[in-house]
Amino acid sequence: MIKVGIVGGTGYTGVELLRLLADHDQVEVVAITSRSEAGTRVDEMFPSLRGYYDLAFTDASDESLAACDVVFFATPNGVAMRRIPALMAKGARIIDLSADFRLQDLGVWEKWYGEQHLAPELVPAAVYGLPEMFREKIAGARLVANPGCYATAIQLGFLPLVEQGLVDTSWLIADGKSGASGAGRAAKVGTLMGEVGESFKAYGASGHRHGPEIEQGLAAMQGKPATVTFVPHLVPMVRGIEATLYARLTDDSQDLQALFESRFADEPFVDVMPWGSHPETRSVRGGNTCRMALHRQPGQSQIIVTSVIDNLVKGAAGQAIQNLNIMCGLPETQGLKSPALLP
Amino acid sequence: MIKVGIVGGTGYTGVELLRLLADHDQVEVVAITSRSEAGTRVDEMFPSLRGYYDLAFTDASDESLAACDVVFFATPNGVAMRRIPALMAKGARIIDLSADFRLQDLGVWEKWYGEQHLAPELVPAAVYGLPEMFREKIAGARLVANPGCYATAIQLGFLPLVEQGLVDTSWLIADGKSGASGAGRAAKVGTLMGEVGESFKAYGASGHRHGPEIEQGLAAMQGKPATVTFVPHLVPMVRGIEATLYARLTDDSQDLQALFESRFADEPFVDVMPWGSHPETRSVRGGNTCRMALHRQPGQSQIIVTSVIDNLVKGAAGQAIQNLNIMCGLPETQGLKSPALLP
Amino acid sequence: MIKVGIVGGTGYTGVELLRLLADHDQVEVVAITSRSEAGTRVDEMFPSLRGYYDLAFTDASDESLAACDVVFFATPNGVAMRRIPALMAKGARIIDLSADFRLQDLGVWEKWYGEQHLAPELVPAAVYGLPEMFREKIAGARLVANPGCYATAIQLGFLPLVEQGLVDTSWLIADGKSGASGAGRAAKVGTLMGEVGESFKAYGASGHRHGPEIEQGLAAMQGKPATVTFVPHLVPMVRGIEATLYARLTDDSQDLQALFESRFADEPFVDVMPWGSHPETRSVRGGNTCRMALHRQPGQSQIIVTSVIDNLVKGAAGQAIQNLNIMCGLPETQGLKSPALLP
Amino acid sequence: MIKVGIVGGTGYTGVELLRLLADHDQVEVVAITSRSEAGTRVDEMFPSLRGYYDLAFTDASDESLAACDVVFFATPNGVAMRRIPALMAKGARIIDLSADFRLQDLGVWEKWYGEQHLAPELVPAAVYGLPEMFREKIAGARLVANPGCYATAIQLGFLPLVEQGLVDTSWLIADGKSGASGAGRAAKVGTLMGEVGESFKAYGASGHRHGPEIEQGLAAMQGKPATVTFVPHLVPMVRGIEATLYARLTDDSQDLQALFESRFADEPFVDVMPWGSHPETRSVRGGNTCRMALHRQPGQSQIIVTSVIDNLVKGAAGQAIQNLNIMCGLPETQGLKSPALLP
Repeated sequence: MIKVGIVGGTGYTGVELLRLLADHDQVEVVAITSRSEAGTRVDEMFPSLRGYYDLAFTDASDESLAACDVVFFATPNGVAMRRIPALMAKGARIIDLSADFRLQDLGVWEKWYGEQHLAPELVPAAVYGLPEMFREKIAGARLVANPGCYATAIQLGFLPLVEQGLVDTSWLIADGKSGASGAGRAAKVGTLMGEVGESFKAYGASGHRHGPEIEQGLAAMQGKPATVTFVPHLVPMVRGIEATLYARLTDDSQDLQALFESRFADEPFVDVMPWGSHPETRSVRGGNTCRMALHRQPGQSQIIVTSVIDNLVKGAAGQAIQNLNIMCGLPETQGLKSPALLP
Repeated sequence: MIKVGIVGGTGYTGVELLRLLADHDQVEVVAITSRSEAGTRVDEMFPSLRGYYDLAFTDASDESLAACDVVFFATPNGVAMRRIPALMAKGARIIDLSADFRLQDLGVWEKWYGEQHLAPELVPAAVYGLPEMFREKIAGARLVANPGCYATAIQLGFLPLVEQGLVDTSWLIADGKSGASGAGRAAKVGTLMGEVGESFKAYGASGHRHGPEIEQGLAAMQGKPATVTFVPHLVPMVRGIEATLYARLTDDSQDLQALFESRFADEPFVDVMPWGSHPETRSVRGGNTCRMALHRQPGQSQIIVTSVIDNLVKGAAGQAIQNLNIMCGLPETQGLKSPALLP
Repeated sequence: MIKVGIVGGTGYTGVELLRLLADHDQVEVVAITSRSEAGTRVDEMFPSLRGYYDLAFTDASDESLAACDVVFFATPNGVAMRRIPALMAKGARIIDLSADFRLQDLGVWEKWYGEQHLAPELVPAAVYGLPEMFREKIAGARLVANPGCYATAIQLGFLPLVEQGLVDTSWLIADGKSGASGAGRAAKVGTLMGEVGESFKAYGASGHRHGPEIEQGLAAMQGKPATVTFVPHLVPMVRGIEATLYARLTDDSQDLQALFESRFADEPFVDVMPWGSHPETRSVRGGNTCRMALHRQPGQSQIIVTSVIDNLVKGAAGQAIQNLNIMCGLPETQGLKSPALLP
Repeated sequence: MIKVGIVGGTGYTGVELLRLLADHDQVEVVAITSRSEAGTRVDEMFPSLRGYYDLAFTDASDESLAACDVVFFATPNGVAMRRIPALMAKGARIIDLSADFRLQDLGVWEKWYGEQHLAPELVPAAVYGLPEMFREKIAGARLVANPGCYATAIQLGFLPLVEQGLVDTSWLIADGKSGASGAGRAAKVGTLMGEVGESFKAYGASGHRHGPEIEQGLAAMQGKPATVTFVPHLVPMVRGIEATLYARLTDDSQDLQALFESRFADEPFVDVMPWGSHPETRSVRGGNTCRMALHRQPGQSQIIVTSVIDNLVKGAAGQAIQNLNIMCGLPETQGLKSPALLP
């Protein structure tokens, strides 16, 4: 059994890790910490877990973390970089679900996250945990930076096009939409049901932190910089991300459907639907799949990709477990096999 | 492997059976029928199942049903009673998720369902599939009448009180609330998002079909008739039932919390929360649990029970699989072990 | 023009007062205060009001309040009792939308609201602002205690039955359901979209502050105490309250439909639908109407009333303006004439 | 008083016309027709209108329509072109809320709407009812083609940029999102709460009828063709449209905020928020406003416009009444003055 710890377990990614790991028979959760809820039983805070865990939150100083094989950080940005160095020194491998190690360019990171990076020495060796791009590096990584939710759906949707150099990457557009759980479980007026319910809006339209993360990935795909205009939106629902991607084709000679199907043929968690389909977020609710489809409009040279994920699964906890499986040499789909919850 | 067929697979209980059975390693779904969608692949209609089933809907005459060990009827009321006799004659055991065999009193059935019963000879041997009351009979049953969704949440909530004769059963009140999936997947104006969204209402307040079903169960608990005033309501959500139950205590000397915990101690799918808790429907979303809690208000002799289930799981497909497990001598929780999806 | 002030204008009842008063041509809002948002323009916080008000929030010391004819308190409980005495001394009439003056029994108030009452001398003269019961007293009142939202829907639904002595008031049941705006606009985990969305639950089932408020009203209707079991529930929507009321008839000889229609015949904001109808909360969204209908189930001696209001209108701001109209001798429906927003 | 008729009153635009006209003191609704509901009282179908109209649906042959000054068609596409000629011959002026007269190019119309146009002789004189572009023509029109909902939000957002020739109109992107009421009130599986709730998806991504309508408008703005990639999406809510518009600036020397504010300075129903704001659909719920804001991302030459309307008001019934006011020489805001319903 692989011993696992979770730092920051009271948020939505924390409970989602627990939900998914309950179905994972090679993993044992031995410690889960919370600054604010130390002493509270996990199933008291999350009654959906009654009968699954006999575990209480401990405080951050919990020494059992150091004995873990893998530690997940499900903390707000800025926490992992403070705590990871000591843990890694004791031998634990780390999967960080926050943004602390997602950007290789520290200048860009510090601009978007508004503080100095406190573990710059760990950044070069941190592996960006998108298995469809970096599976081999993940296998050997000691620190995996789990991708952002929007960034996952958007990079996977652009991947075959950009890898093959088929689109004008001087201007890509990604219109993203997310359920409210993406904003986390902290008490904020802006994500109250009374504010979010029965309404829709863009946010971060003048620039969002996932923009540079996506552009870093696009650059890796094609070996040169790319520009994306990314605008996120808030959907009056709990879970799910949809991204509609627009790009101008520079090469119109390819069978794009075949390209996408071929690119992802061996990927257990990417599903390319038939041309012209409309993936729904509910078709991936609770599952680790990124489901996508392609479209073109009559007489236009643009390609449209619609891509959906569950923001808490493929966009966070599920992808983290996929990464754990890869790091530990387990079957990649272990603990992630159940179908999505539809309706 | 147990060979299973599903009649009427295009509704919400049909797709839910498929979702849950994908996690059940002792069962193989060999046939699924649909009048309207014969020839359509199951995963074309329900993309959440892509990769899980290589199966298309067949029409009602599908002979492979007769070779099944167990056939689920996920059809509108009135279909099962027309088709079950022939299937049973060929040896299949039946779990009927519709209402055709839920009521033992044919006069009552015909009054509420508005037609003559066409298989009255099967009614006496049909077993009401509420395992918490009738587990042993279910084990040997050839025809199980799977309980209604409201009826499940409400009977389980009243069960310990009525069995022990602690409340005035001349007037029990059950205020039920359900998500819109309870109304099925048929095209109706009344369950459009535009009608149901951001609104709340009672329906069937002058009498609902689950009323007599609940009263039949209450009578079985105490060996004499009981009266329940049951009013259902429509909640602007997809899944979930909550029932708030009110009863006047006739015996105030008991430790009711202990009674409930003891009554359900061996039940894998009933969870009694601590006194005064408030179970949420999301705490059972996608899971087969009925979760409940008890309350009393200052100075009052009434007991209040709040009880939640997922209407499509413990209220339909999950309970049907629980019954299948019992009928086939499998562990009762097989295929039903995953935690609920929260949030 | 009547000069009006609003204390505590950043919550949902505050913005709702502003929305409704924009349609009221006899009233001018001259001051609106907020501890936290002093200096912010009203339409910056609430863009729906852009073009309607040229007004910024001021701090609590705003002297222009004292020059108002009427001041609304849209503050959390406990604020009004601290600030009203000074304002009243300067001549302003007060409509308090909080709970500070709703209960005449100070012992009960202090038990449920958890602190000592600081203006007990004002309580006896405070008039409970339910026009359908106390219209004449409201007309002459200097301090009106605007009723709670649940308490409004429930009292109006029971009113004809209890006034006429037709039901057993030793046990009335009121099962209430409210949208999340009823919990206010303060940042709390419990009312995040991620917590409330796509879920349903009871809360306060062991006792809720509106219970004694309802019982006070029931006692006033019949001249003797009554007992109500009131359980509120949280609905995944923004606005709206539905209450389903249950009572045992002690006198079965009356035409109850005629009784309700006659009792409310002259009430501009109570609508009795035909027997057996199911009022929807959306049918009163944004409007000041309480809409209700009556039901009986076959063979039962219980009467069921379903009653809906918009919790922010008839349950708060609209009823407050109705009270203002009565206090100022204006037509009672002034500013409250627009139909509800359906769908 | 202006006598008004409504053809096809049982859908969402029909009831919305009635809601808004109840606040319009220069208009009397004298007839409302429905094929399916002739004889039903309007307030029986829509209880929100109880007390506002003493009117029943009549069948299509209702002769009183011919005596109306203005007749609204709130019918499915294809009905108006069959019935309008006879009505216009009797003198009625027409506001058609369907798509029958929106496209001047009959070939394009017939391609997208799938049938032959039956009143081609009326098309040239039909005026496209977007007052911000065609106010003067509307004033004298006998037949107004009320714009589509998406088309309204999108054209208004692009208008100042395209009129002034500041963007590359060889590729404009419009990512639209709509609540489910946009799909109408017909019984369809695809818009059931059980299908739409707690989910998000694109639809019509390979081409949608509003695409050519938008392109017709863009061409009129700049006097030459333009290309828009328009993808609509379905939001799990009832009302509201948001469109996020993307364009590459060809002229970067202008103060775009000033341009937008100046272009719409005299428009009563267009509100330009401060640069970088995020308009929410709820800020226009129930109101006739189109609210928008501008954004640019760091280092990018693209301009982003986010634009919101209520699809049933500025996107349908409200704009139709605005057109009626213009046609009849009334103040343009008559009956449309109430603030939006927020929250």
